[in-house]
Amino acid sequence: MTETNDTVECNDSKINDSSANDEDIVNPWDVRSSSAAGVDYDKLIKRFGSSKLDADLLERFQKVTGKPVHHLLKRGIFFSHRDLNVILDRHEKRQPFFLYTGRGPSSESMHLGHLIPFILTKWLQETFDVPLIIQLTDDEKFLWKDLSIEEANRLAYENAKDIIACGFDESKTFIFSDIDYIGQSSDFYKVICRIQKSVTFNQARGIFGFSDTDCIGKISFPAIQAATSFSASFPFIFNKRSDIPCLIPCAIDQDPYFRMTRDVAPRLNYQKPALIHSTFIPSLQGAQTKMSGSDPNSSIYLTDTAKQIKTKINKYAFSGGGDSVEEHKLKGGNCEIDVSYQYLKYFLEDDKRLSEIYRTYTSGELLTGHLKKELIDLVQVIVENHQKKRKEVSDDVVKRFMTPRKLNFSF
Amino acid sequence: MTETNDTVECNDSKINDSSANDEDIVNPWDVRSSSAAGVDYDKLIKRFGSSKLDADLLERFQKVTGKPVHHLLKRGIFFSHRDLNVILDRHEKRQPFFLYTGRGPSSESMHLGHLIPFILTKWLQETFDVPLIIQLTDDEKFLWKDLSIEEANRLAYENAKDIIACGFDESKTFIFSDIDYIGQSSDFYKVICRIQKSVTFNQARGIFGFSDTDCIGKISFPAIQAATSFSASFPFIFNKRSDIPCLIPCAIDQDPYFRMTRDVAPRLNYQKPALIHSTFIPSLQGAQTKMSGSDPNSSIYLTDTAKQIKTKINKYAFSGGGDSVEEHKLKGGNCEIDVSYQYLKYFLEDDKRLSEIYRTYTSGELLTGHLKKELIDLVQVIVENHQKKRKEVSDDVVKRFMTPRKLNFSF
Repeated sequence: MTETNDTVECNDSKINDSSANDEDIVNPWDVRSSSAAGVDYDKLIKRFGSSKLDADLLERFQKVTGKPVHHLLKRGIFFSHRDLNVILDRHEKRQPFFLYTGRGPSSESMHLGHLIPFILTKWLQETFDVPLIIQLTDDEKFLWKDLSIEEANRLAYENAKDIIACGFDESKTFIFSDIDYIGQSSDFYKVICRIQKSVTFNQARGIFGFSDTDCIGKISFPAIQAATSFSASFPFIFNKRSDIPCLIPCAIDQDPYFRMTRDVAPRLNYQKPALIHSTFIPSLQGAQTKMSGSDPNSSIYLTDTAKQIKTKINKYAFSGGGDSVEEHKLKGGNCEIDVSYQYLKYFLEDDKRLSEIYRTYTSGELLTGHLKKELIDLVQVIVENHQKKRKEVSDDVVKRFMTPRKLNFSF
Repeated sequence: MTETNDTVECNDSKINDSSANDEDIVNPWDVRSSSAAGVDYDKLIKRFGSSKLDADLLERFQKVTGKPVHHLLKRGIFFSHRDLNVILDRHEKRQPFFLYTGRGPSSESMHLGHLIPFILTKWLQETFDVPLIIQLTDDEKFLWKDLSIEEANRLAYENAKDIIACGFDESKTFIFSDIDYIGQSSDFYKVICRIQKSVTFNQARGIFGFSDTDCIGKISFPAIQAATSFSASFPFIFNKRSDIPCLIPCAIDQDPYFRMTRDVAPRLNYQKPALIHSTFIPSLQGAQTKMSGSDPNSSIYLTDTAKQIKTKINKYAFSGGGDSVEEHKLKGGNCEIDVSYQYLKYFLEDDKRLSEIYRTYTSGELLTGHLKKELIDLVQVIVENHQKKRKEVSDDVVKRFMTPRKLNFSF
């Protein structure tokens, strides 16, 4: 998984269908838009061939789970899906499924944007009460970046602490590093081999834009991210059943992996994974690029101090407000391009407060400084809480989460 | 390893440098010559850039080991090498090295030709007293052939019995199936990843002739056969040392794998493997093709009965004798193209008897029927002995050979 993108070496690897001139670039290694409002997600749904996560489906979601939907769903931050209805059908019929998400561990400290899939995944796990599998693609990061394999593996364990700090239920969650789990399970390797036999170089190039100068590790890697979608990779959880599908919450740049996965699944007698796709959290500088771990000024890290958070938001967060107080009061602010407002949309749970902010900022009543203050206060609390919880995650807890074992379900 | 060749799917995969019109075709998936005397091995040495295993080097071999060289060396059946002198230097200085050979388990019953590398390897192990690692590339066979992964894995264990029956010392030999060992050791996977990061698709295509329609598993597989060359893949044997090189006895069709391996080794701070290359045992029909597991009439299997052996040799073994007894007595026989004589060169240890046969068959004194009789008697004994020894190899013995463990050496 490469939810962040900070890859330099891969500029020659472009997803074929994303390189047209006027189109946003969205692939696992690069996300860019020429529009200040960021990626045109409606266009992306068409281009990727996914489906809009619309009001009807959200209503059904609410009905099936008997619970108001999470604000990340309601506010369209998760905006697209594949086969979510199939998963809801299964939940209604009490048929099993599991959740799968992941992270490419390329840096010591994760940033705010990295939390998004984990926040929703935690809520989904609580809502559906299903097993959760989290893949840390340390082998991918080794292949794509200037990292030693030991360092990539170490980062997987560091990032696991941040993920565990999100509050996942240990008895229902298996977290693994590719490097370690491949060395622990022939079952996983067998599934990887089956996928690798089913995808030609031509197909991989078509999906991921690989070039002839890419290393052979990159070319075969997608099978490893795909393999986690299949319950046959985790016999200790699923009792060797290969008929249990998963739901994958992820940022939409990961979709190419799972288009490939869904394509090979029927040929291998495996279940197609379902997906829900999120938008990208904008960089502090604006929605043309997403928050990136490799640019400190674009990101708020989970290791930042309260002071750093305040400085970064005040100094860098792109404002949709007027150039002067007078102009702002006269013309109002533009929430669509205002990064502080956008971040509140991701993290402020209180709907009423959010719409009040929207209304008063749009009218010009609420000034940029006050809007930023609102965000700073919220992010300081989120990050401080995260840091506190992360400290409580001992190496022993990490080891327990990352040990292949039966989870608290019977299949 | 694909010491045999019986691959159908790979006809589109040709080694670049072997597709010239008048040249023999020699690559891991195909061996063919238009000459009745078979592949021109001197030309092959030039084309592959290896070195001739000449009289001087054999003399040094004998001096360093204090032991007459094996008939497979003396008779030029192992005819080519890379860095054998480096290995002899190490032996002289009492510096460690190990032996590595392997097999692609694509069929239940191995044939006579499959024994060749194992016969020499056993002798080398006894002569040098070094650890031996034998790789069974069941993942390769799954990728290249119409086999399920379970079947390929099962064949690895069946073939392991035949290999163990050759008489290897359990305390000094580790046999593994790729599928199983990858699932047992992150160390092996880490070495594989390092190699996969160091080889581009372009390079792999140049060496192996992969095409765009080959599956991504085939494209990344060479790293797995390469990884076994490096002691870092076996920390339980070599105590995590990565400075111990290996000597690989193999048929020369496997050389492309190890050219790639030798190319990446210095970049990864690993030792280049040394090699000694054998010729191909001819098919019963003649030296234009090698003995192939997929053509029952071309091969003598290790499971054949005495009667089958007799029938096959009498019926199919291509004769270099005269068309009639009169002509044979007048003109003599041609040992160079006579398959029975060639097989005796591989398997008849008695030098004196072999040269007598050569002399009398060439002069016309020894008739084809008698030559064949000599071979039938010998092969019947070899195969019967092998079958007896194989029966004694229990599943438990196989398991012991195939368990990652310390061997009887200290590094």
